[in-house]
Amino acid sequence: MAVKYELIKTCAQTGARLGRLHTPHGVIDTPTFMPVGTQASVKGMSPEELKSLGAQIILSNTYHLFLRPGHELVKEAGGLHRFMNWDRPILTDSGGFQVFSLSEMRKITEEGVEFRSHINGDKLSLTPESATQVQNALGSDILMAFDECPPYPAEYEYVKQSTERTSRWAERCLKAHQRPHDQALFGIVQGGMHKDLRKMSAMDLTSLDFPGYAIGGLSVGESKPLMYEMLEETVPHLPSHKPRYLMGVGSPDALLEGSIRGVDMFDCVLPTRIARNGTLMTSQGRMVVRNAKYTNDFSPLDPECSCYACRNYSRAYIRHLIKADEMFGLRLTTIHNLHFLVQLMAQVREAIREDRLGTFRDEFFEKYGMAHNESGF
Amino acid sequence: MAVKYELIKTCAQTGARLGRLHTPHGVIDTPTFMPVGTQASVKGMSPEELKSLGAQIILSNTYHLFLRPGHELVKEAGGLHRFMNWDRPILTDSGGFQVFSLSEMRKITEEGVEFRSHINGDKLSLTPESATQVQNALGSDILMAFDECPPYPAEYEYVKQSTERTSRWAERCLKAHQRPHDQALFGIVQGGMHKDLRKMSAMDLTSLDFPGYAIGGLSVGESKPLMYEMLEETVPHLPSHKPRYLMGVGSPDALLEGSIRGVDMFDCVLPTRIARNGTLMTSQGRMVVRNAKYTNDFSPLDPECSCYACRNYSRAYIRHLIKADEMFGLRLTTIHNLHFLVQLMAQVREAIREDRLGTFRDEFFEKYGMAHNESGF
Repeated sequence: MAVKYELIKTCAQTGARLGRLHTPHGVIDTPTFMPVGTQASVKGMSPEELKSLGAQIILSNTYHLFLRPGHELVKEAGGLHRFMNWDRPILTDSGGFQVFSLSEMRKITEEGVEFRSHINGDKLSLTPESATQVQNALGSDILMAFDECPPYPAEYEYVKQSTERTSRWAERCLKAHQRPHDQALFGIVQGGMHKDLRKMSAMDLTSLDFPGYAIGGLSVGESKPLMYEMLEETVPHLPSHKPRYLMGVGSPDALLEGSIRGVDMFDCVLPTRIARNGTLMTSQGRMVVRNAKYTNDFSPLDPECSCYACRNYSRAYIRHLIKADEMFGLRLTTIHNLHFLVQLMAQVREAIREDRLGTFRDEFFEKYGMAHNESGF
Repeated sequence: MAVKYELIKTCAQTGARLGRLHTPHGVIDTPTFMPVGTQASVKGMSPEELKSLGAQIILSNTYHLFLRPGHELVKEAGGLHRFMNWDRPILTDSGGFQVFSLSEMRKITEEGVEFRSHINGDKLSLTPESATQVQNALGSDILMAFDECPPYPAEYEYVKQSTERTSRWAERCLKAHQRPHDQALFGIVQGGMHKDLRKMSAMDLTSLDFPGYAIGGLSVGESKPLMYEMLEETVPHLPSHKPRYLMGVGSPDALLEGSIRGVDMFDCVLPTRIARNGTLMTSQGRMVVRNAKYTNDFSPLDPECSCYACRNYSRAYIRHLIKADEMFGLRLTTIHNLHFLVQLMAQVREAIREDRLGTFRDEFFEKYGMAHNESGF
């Protein structure tokens, strides 16, 4: 089996899991946050910078790589790791989420999804088989089953049919998977905001015995309490000896609440996307460095942070760079935000080890300036 | 005196000068190429990356910093070095070239230049005194006298009057300069494409005894042979114990021909600007990595290059990044082009040391695919 999850301990205070995920490209300490490198690059970052801020695994998007430069080219380059010069683990999504987001530009059938490229309008399709084949060509350590992420809100009947289809598609992905020895295929639990469908989906997928399970279809517009409720309905149905990945979640509060509910892996474009707009995650909460009040503020973005940006540059300089459209400003804010989340997860692991993650969460929220379950972003 | 030029030797084959320029922020080996960091940042680059490719000095633009973030802010930050975290030498231009480039948006008088900001249309002015004061606040190691760069072509009479005014302005800059102990003010020789005016300008300026001299008003649209002819008319009038800086020149052929004619310093946005468009300087000549023929070319940009981009990434990957508008692509092409020019100057210095710069030039041109005096860019 390509990946192996090792459970080190469970936090006595919360039930959160401290673990290690062994993959062909190295070990990941969990719970972990995965920076997103959509087009075979975490925007603005070098692999060395990602390593120096502590990233152990990154995510890349199958939909985007399928369109450009194409999975065959990446395969010819020796796989995604070699193509982008990243020798640590990579997780690829299945492309499902992206093609469904195209809304009017796609059509779903039992076979798969037909859609038009957002780049040039070409008519294309992805099926459970082809999405798996594309990810086999990319050579990620972890690939995801092709699923449908139903919109929110959606009718119960639609979500039920969609979730059942996702289960049928998951089985087709397993059959199509050509590299189980060095790539681990994770199933994705769907079920919308319906407890019974979440349970049904989890039961369906675990019966197929995937090496890991993702929880999809959350963080799609629902409230944080509802997301946490759905997590609580899903996680207990997943086996404890396999990793659990909550897709598309990256706000600090949700990383803490997700860890507490037994999640091991997270990814989100949030830290990198808001960084490019000059918005920072700091130990004092959200900060918009573009604001005029930082014009001649020569302190670091976050006085408690030890990242490259905070060690060497002032708010005034970074504000200047961003106002002047200088690329280096985006590098610095991106480094800071990724460092913030990656280091937050290191603190989470330490707190689990010491059976005090609940206390850590409470203290973090107080300092970060947010109540429980309230979004800071 | 803030800077001291040390002439190590003259190339027996060409007359090119090998030297060292001692400044408050370190020693620069000459001839040298200075990367341009217009807005207190060499676009996309970190100071560490600039150092690792061998840059010993960078240039920053007074006009841009005057407008944004303002020289008073930079002074409050502790000066430009500290503001941008660059502890090696910095040269600032005077802003003259930029305000004259605004064409319809500026008005020249004996007092100075009134112009409108390209950012917000504000009515502003720069005079010899204020341009010097701004650079004193920035704290560059080398500052430039406020000059007029006449357009090309221009009437003899206009160029004569402009050049005389530039001499009067140079004297006013010298008088206004508040930090001669730790900032060296260079005069700028003008004179258009007229031999007698070049000589007149050089005589005027050297009589004022600046610690260094720039040659301005070249690379403004004239042919390369004419530029070299003007250099030959100017350099002999400059003292051999002081540094000579040819402004705005950065094509590989012109760096070689300029060095051969006794120039010690060069700057240009060319390598960084073309990099952002996917155009590379390589040992085999000019290369446009966006071209379709590099789609599945997995060799480095330049097989003979040892830069970070060439050591770790393929043409196919860099092409993909640039086609996909990924910032990291621009970082890689910028690193490569700057490395190419900085290392070319290291080879020039080695060739001077060994009295074979003429031979080196001939061999370089043959390989680079250009005849003498013919532009590769």
